[in-house]
Amino acid sequence: MDTPHVRLGVIGAGFVGRAFVQMLHDESRQIALVDGATAVLEVVGVAVRDTSTAREGIDAALLVDDPMALAAREDVDILVELAGGVEPARTWIETALRRGASVVTANKTLMAEHGTALAQIAHENGADLLYEASVAGGIPIIRALRTSLAGEKINRVLGIVNGTTNFILSQMTSEGRDYADALTEAQNLGYAEADPTADVEAFDAAAKVQILSSLAIGTPLQGEPISREGISAVRAVDVDFARRAGYVIKLIGVVERVGETGLSRRTHPALIPVDHPLAAVHGAMNAVFIEGDKSGPLMWLGQGAGGEPTATAVLGDVLHAARNRVAGRHDVPFTVDDRLTSVDAGDLSSVFYLSIDVRDEPGVLAQVAGVFGRHRVSIQSMEQSGFGQEARLSFLTHEALARDVRSTLDELDQLTSVDAIGACIRVIDGGAA
Amino acid sequence: MDTPHVRLGVIGAGFVGRAFVQMLHDESRQIALVDGATAVLEVVGVAVRDTSTAREGIDAALLVDDPMALAAREDVDILVELAGGVEPARTWIETALRRGASVVTANKTLMAEHGTALAQIAHENGADLLYEASVAGGIPIIRALRTSLAGEKINRVLGIVNGTTNFILSQMTSEGRDYADALTEAQNLGYAEADPTADVEAFDAAAKVQILSSLAIGTPLQGEPISREGISAVRAVDVDFARRAGYVIKLIGVVERVGETGLSRRTHPALIPVDHPLAAVHGAMNAVFIEGDKSGPLMWLGQGAGGEPTATAVLGDVLHAARNRVAGRHDVPFTVDDRLTSVDAGDLSSVFYLSIDVRDEPGVLAQVAGVFGRHRVSIQSMEQSGFGQEARLSFLTHEALARDVRSTLDELDQLTSVDAIGACIRVIDGGAA
Repeated sequence: MDTPHVRLGVIGAGFVGRAFVQMLHDESRQIALVDGATAVLEVVGVAVRDTSTAREGIDAALLVDDPMALAAREDVDILVELAGGVEPARTWIETALRRGASVVTANKTLMAEHGTALAQIAHENGADLLYEASVAGGIPIIRALRTSLAGEKINRVLGIVNGTTNFILSQMTSEGRDYADALTEAQNLGYAEADPTADVEAFDAAAKVQILSSLAIGTPLQGEPISREGISAVRAVDVDFARRAGYVIKLIGVVERVGETGLSRRTHPALIPVDHPLAAVHGAMNAVFIEGDKSGPLMWLGQGAGGEPTATAVLGDVLHAARNRVAGRHDVPFTVDDRLTSVDAGDLSSVFYLSIDVRDEPGVLAQVAGVFGRHRVSIQSMEQSGFGQEARLSFLTHEALARDVRSTLDELDQLTSVDAIGACIRVIDGGAA
Repeated sequence: MDTPHVRLGVIGAGFVGRAFVQMLHDESRQIALVDGATAVLEVVGVAVRDTSTAREGIDAALLVDDPMALAAREDVDILVELAGGVEPARTWIETALRRGASVVTANKTLMAEHGTALAQIAHENGADLLYEASVAGGIPIIRALRTSLAGEKINRVLGIVNGTTNFILSQMTSEGRDYADALTEAQNLGYAEADPTADVEAFDAAAKVQILSSLAIGTPLQGEPISREGISAVRAVDVDFARRAGYVIKLIGVVERVGETGLSRRTHPALIPVDHPLAAVHGAMNAVFIEGDKSGPLMWLGQGAGGEPTATAVLGDVLHAARNRVAGRHDVPFTVDDRLTSVDAGDLSSVFYLSIDVRDEPGVLAQVAGVFGRHRVSIQSMEQSGFGQEARLSFLTHEALARDVRSTLDELDQLTSVDAIGACIRVIDGGAA
């Protein structure tokens, strides 16, 4: 029997697209593909904005300038969408799926907003819609959740899923830099964009939380809001206090079951115990930490971005789609559990790190402590550091309701002896086993 | 269409077997199984030594005392072998495979010695042979290597794949205990056997290195020797020196490409930089760290043992085999790359930590340094600690050939001023990105 050919159309020739096409040209990889996928993968077109610019490693004859035509082309078996953004990417993908082609995408924003609808279209047309590269770059977390852990009930997911913010916080931790300096460094090194909003205000992480939630818990992918807090308010003094108390500050994405049918999904900075595996995720690395009912803790760590790592995730999906295609089958769509309802973040309890700038006068601490007490927030430890006429009070609370902590800070903010509320950051429980 | 039933025969009702059968009885899991696998999984027999003893969570009517009969039973679609050891497990598995049943096993010793032959029998009979639970308990590393990373060239695998030794070394690190105390503690807590040889002398880790090597690099599973060194010679002073120099000591399993066609596979204690993700693998946890050509570093962390975590790996395999069975297909067997040849451990270079007990006399250091120089081993740093008439010299070398380090120590051992060679432990390069 002739080895079947599976034809690929690629949209986008940025870092990931170029790395992907080059990987397919690598001879040693071709052997693995033929053995592993029992198919030859052939790129028949690469859609780019400007076909007159040469792209290293891509045959100029493959370049086309009409992504929509590539998506619609009858001989394209798998469309690889690496352009990003919601439209026109959504239309290209729908076009390919409706004629029965499978789609591999790295597009987190699109999947977070339209994933469930697109997966349904894929299923109805006997096609696969795969998106391993959309979360945590080269880390094969999506396939693990869909296959190895398909029989497991997952209680909590904690993810470091944005390399830019992890790099900035790592710099603040290891070099003692403040936020603005660390951001500039990240921009100089190409880890952060000129406008860093999507990363530092956690829009990027929130889209990934949507996708992880869908896979781990079964929530639909249709743009539900995720409670979102970024890192721009984290100060060098907070990082320093955390270090002395045995923690590191990380931006985490959280998906958490609350009781039988409750669910909390959010992104925020958090104090992580230094002996927790997530505390060892340095620089621009990504990691996803899962607490399974029976499996116990599991963590995946790897490169969250970069052309070649992300391209390995795309290649893994393409191989899977190609195998399915040769076998005449496609994956079953993911299960949606519609019994789950969002729990208000105020109803969640946690240990909190709080920092308050006060006038250094007699009686202030007693006044502050009184406010904590009235709002049922009990103090685990306190540290006072004075500077001139001011003092900074840093607290670790015992487990407290977020709404009680909020009302404590609101009342403190009214006191004339309180100059500023400095920090209110949750502490994640549970170190390593 | 009626939902198809897939019938399971389970051999062994220890911690893993009981947890596995109980997981299948859990109603919420049944739903997941039906949706995800489009099949109902039904246990038709559990083979145990003594059927008269009740097993919690297992219907007494399912207990049988003849594993061979269960393996041969025509209505068993998937045999789940959780007994361990080479024979008679090999015969049971071959019997099931030859009549076309798939097999899921947690048996590392058997897979390391007979995996290639059994996989061939599985393939010839249209069956699957799956063994996720044989390496690193509940961590889904085998499926990741066979699917997501199928297109990736893996250059090095570093694994902490034995929880007992990692617990002992973690105790020595965090509590300052010596080896004998930490071993006793591990035995008291049930982490170590009364006869700890298989763990502390790294027989267990070596079998897992065989399996990881087969998956990551393509070596055959037929009992090739793995260079094996355990942890019984690691002393509290070594752990303490490592800590002060910025390292932790871990027992690691290594699979490493050397040049185009060379391969090194071994287990030994190693100094790991504290900022390496493997350094954060505490207690009885396991982790596998991979350096891929394009993916960059990737790490998986989780429970390496325990009934429920290991049972989740068995369940993941059973679901996969059940899906294949319903679809009328089986996995392609793994590729064997027979161009690879073992490289002698003496030909590998590394940084070494060495410790030598000497008489505290003038001229001894010059004499010792002269021996290093004659054998082309250059010293990166040295620490001398005196106690009475003796002194301990602790060295970190620059990168050196293992055979040169060996001959250095052999010559030092001949000197009258040298009382004992204390430690010779390799340092792993590469911290976190």
